Amino acid sequence: MTTLLILDSQADAYNEFVKNAHLPGLNVLLATDPSGLPEGAALAEVVLAPPGLLIGALPRLTSLRWVQSTWAGVESLLAPELPRNYLLSGVKGVFGTQMAEYTLCYMLAHERQVIQRFDSQRQGAWDHRMPGQLAGKHAVFLGLGSIGGECALRCRQFGMRTSAVTRSGAQTALVDKHFQVENLPQAVSDADYLVMSLPDTPETRHLVDGPVLDALPPHAVIINVGRGRSLDQQALLSAMKAGELAGAVLDVFEHEPLAPGDALWDCPGITITAHTSAVSFVEDIAPLFLANLGRYLAGEQPHHLVDFTRGY
Amino acid sequence: MTTLLILDSQADAYNEFVKNAHLPGLNVLLATDPSGLPEGAALAEVVLAPPGLLIGALPRLTSLRWVQSTWAGVESLLAPELPRNYLLSGVKGVFGTQMAEYTLCYMLAHERQVIQRFDSQRQGAWDHRMPGQLAGKHAVFLGLGSIGGECALRCRQFGMRTSAVTRSGAQTALVDKHFQVENLPQAVSDADYLVMSLPDTPETRHLVDGPVLDALPPHAVIINVGRGRSLDQQALLSAMKAGELAGAVLDVFEHEPLAPGDALWDCPGITITAHTSAVSFVEDIAPLFLANLGRYLAGEQPHHLVDFTRGY
Repeated sequence: MTTLLILDSQADAYNEFVKNAHLPGLNVLLATDPSGLPEGAALAEVVLAPPGLLIGALPRLTSLRWVQSTWAGVESLLAPELPRNYLLSGVKGVFGTQMAEYTLCYMLAHERQVIQRFDSQRQGAWDHRMPGQLAGKHAVFLGLGSIGGECALRCRQFGMRTSAVTRSGAQTALVDKHFQVENLPQAVSDADYLVMSLPDTPETRHLVDGPVLDALPPHAVIINVGRGRSLDQQALLSAMKAGELAGAVLDVFEHEPLAPGDALWDCPGITITAHTSAVSFVEDIAPLFLANLGRYLAGEQPHHLVDFTRGY
Repeated sequence: MTTLLILDSQADAYNEFVKNAHLPGLNVLLATDPSGLPEGAALAEVVLAPPGLLIGALPRLTSLRWVQSTWAGVESLLAPELPRNYLLSGVKGVFGTQMAEYTLCYMLAHERQVIQRFDSQRQGAWDHRMPGQLAGKHAVFLGLGSIGGECALRCRQFGMRTSAVTRSGAQTALVDKHFQVENLPQAVSDADYLVMSLPDTPETRHLVDGPVLDALPPHAVIINVGRGRSLDQQALLSAMKAGELAGAVLDVFEHEPLAPGDALWDCPGITITAHTSAVSFVEDIAPLFLANLGRYLAGEQPHHLVDFTRGY
């Protein structure tokens, strides 16, 4: 008998998927908050939870062997004071679609001046300014994992030119041109859009800093769907105020939620979303978990394991 | 010697393309307004102009044989009191890209609640409402010409299901399902989006009326990039006020520009753009004109001829 603890605000919805899988020898416990752990939670060998809830429960999960995170961001579990004597699976491959929709949404909204036109509508004004278009524009991808790759595919379908900046600079079929990260300023020098989808590691901290922002043309727009710390927010604010950049669409920040009163909130040209570019829909995460649980129960290694040292 | 009159606010830009084509035996006259026609305009056999400017010049264009419109909408030239003794070429095939970008832009903006989130930002609020996504949603196309077809292609690339409603209901490779126009209410009954790209003809007037709006599910959004008269605006307002429809994105109206004070301006859920879903970029129109001019000068029939009786 394996005890599974589902610790999630949507525990019931996840449990429906688990029940329908008819896995033998599984004892399922449900909780929506670490303050309300059910009796027997100490026996839980497998936990399905978002990192934020898991942290509060960790001290009591003395039988823990494997965690499937329901969220992509697992950085909070990497803090050195927390236990690392369990397997941790992240979420991979299910957020590409949402992130690509987010990226294209805000690219198109920029070209089409959606906000400005809606303001005109509110004033009852017939706003016949000329729109721009994505076709022919150049998107540079900083990071070309499953998310960057899916964004690049959509951009190509819109007739955009595409480049990628990666550690190795190795050729792929995903984009037209490839650059090593050492050549980042050169890579972005004729970008219309810079799409960031980097993990949070020491190497990526403030990778987009003042000199990189200087290298971007003044009509360029940054879209960050990766991690907040890969972009130097103070340098961004300076560049925006100096008119050296047309805009930035930020879903992630150095500290989240973004502090009230932060200068980013009302900096013209900056769009702020609340780390919602990809959310965990139960119908996306549950099948991934069940496939991974099948591997675990069969004695195999679960997929998408996080390296506590490497950080992703 | 053939005299060409370029009558357009961007006449100089068009003339650059004409000059670069090095066509022999062409006498080119330029004007930006019918009130300032150059000497010799009465000799113009070929005119490149938008309908709005052409109308004012028509009485003086006594040698006119062929007009290439720079704009898609040529209805104003079909008025019965105007001469019809010349060939009129419309613009086809160059607006699909822009219209597809417009359509996907506003679909994505709806799913992603771009306006609502931006309002949250203006209030400094961390807005973590869940976004929707296009993947899996159902788009129904009313009209499947070059514009509807290109919109349908993009929708499919986003993983949407697609249906089309046309006069014949004939099968195409462009969408998943086909309906005859008689079955319009049935076709839209499970639509998430209804994309209208119809020409303005007696048959399409108020084709989307109260009963069709009733047949749409309450979560559906209408996008009209075709002609305003194919949608009954009063019925739309009633449906919106009754909560029978989630929204409408309108680029065209029964009368344009939309009158100040019209109830559409501030009806919640209605997005108004000023007939800008596709605009005439000189770099798009000039090559089309030059190809057509080549045909005309060679004694062939120009492409995209408008039937003055049929209306398109």
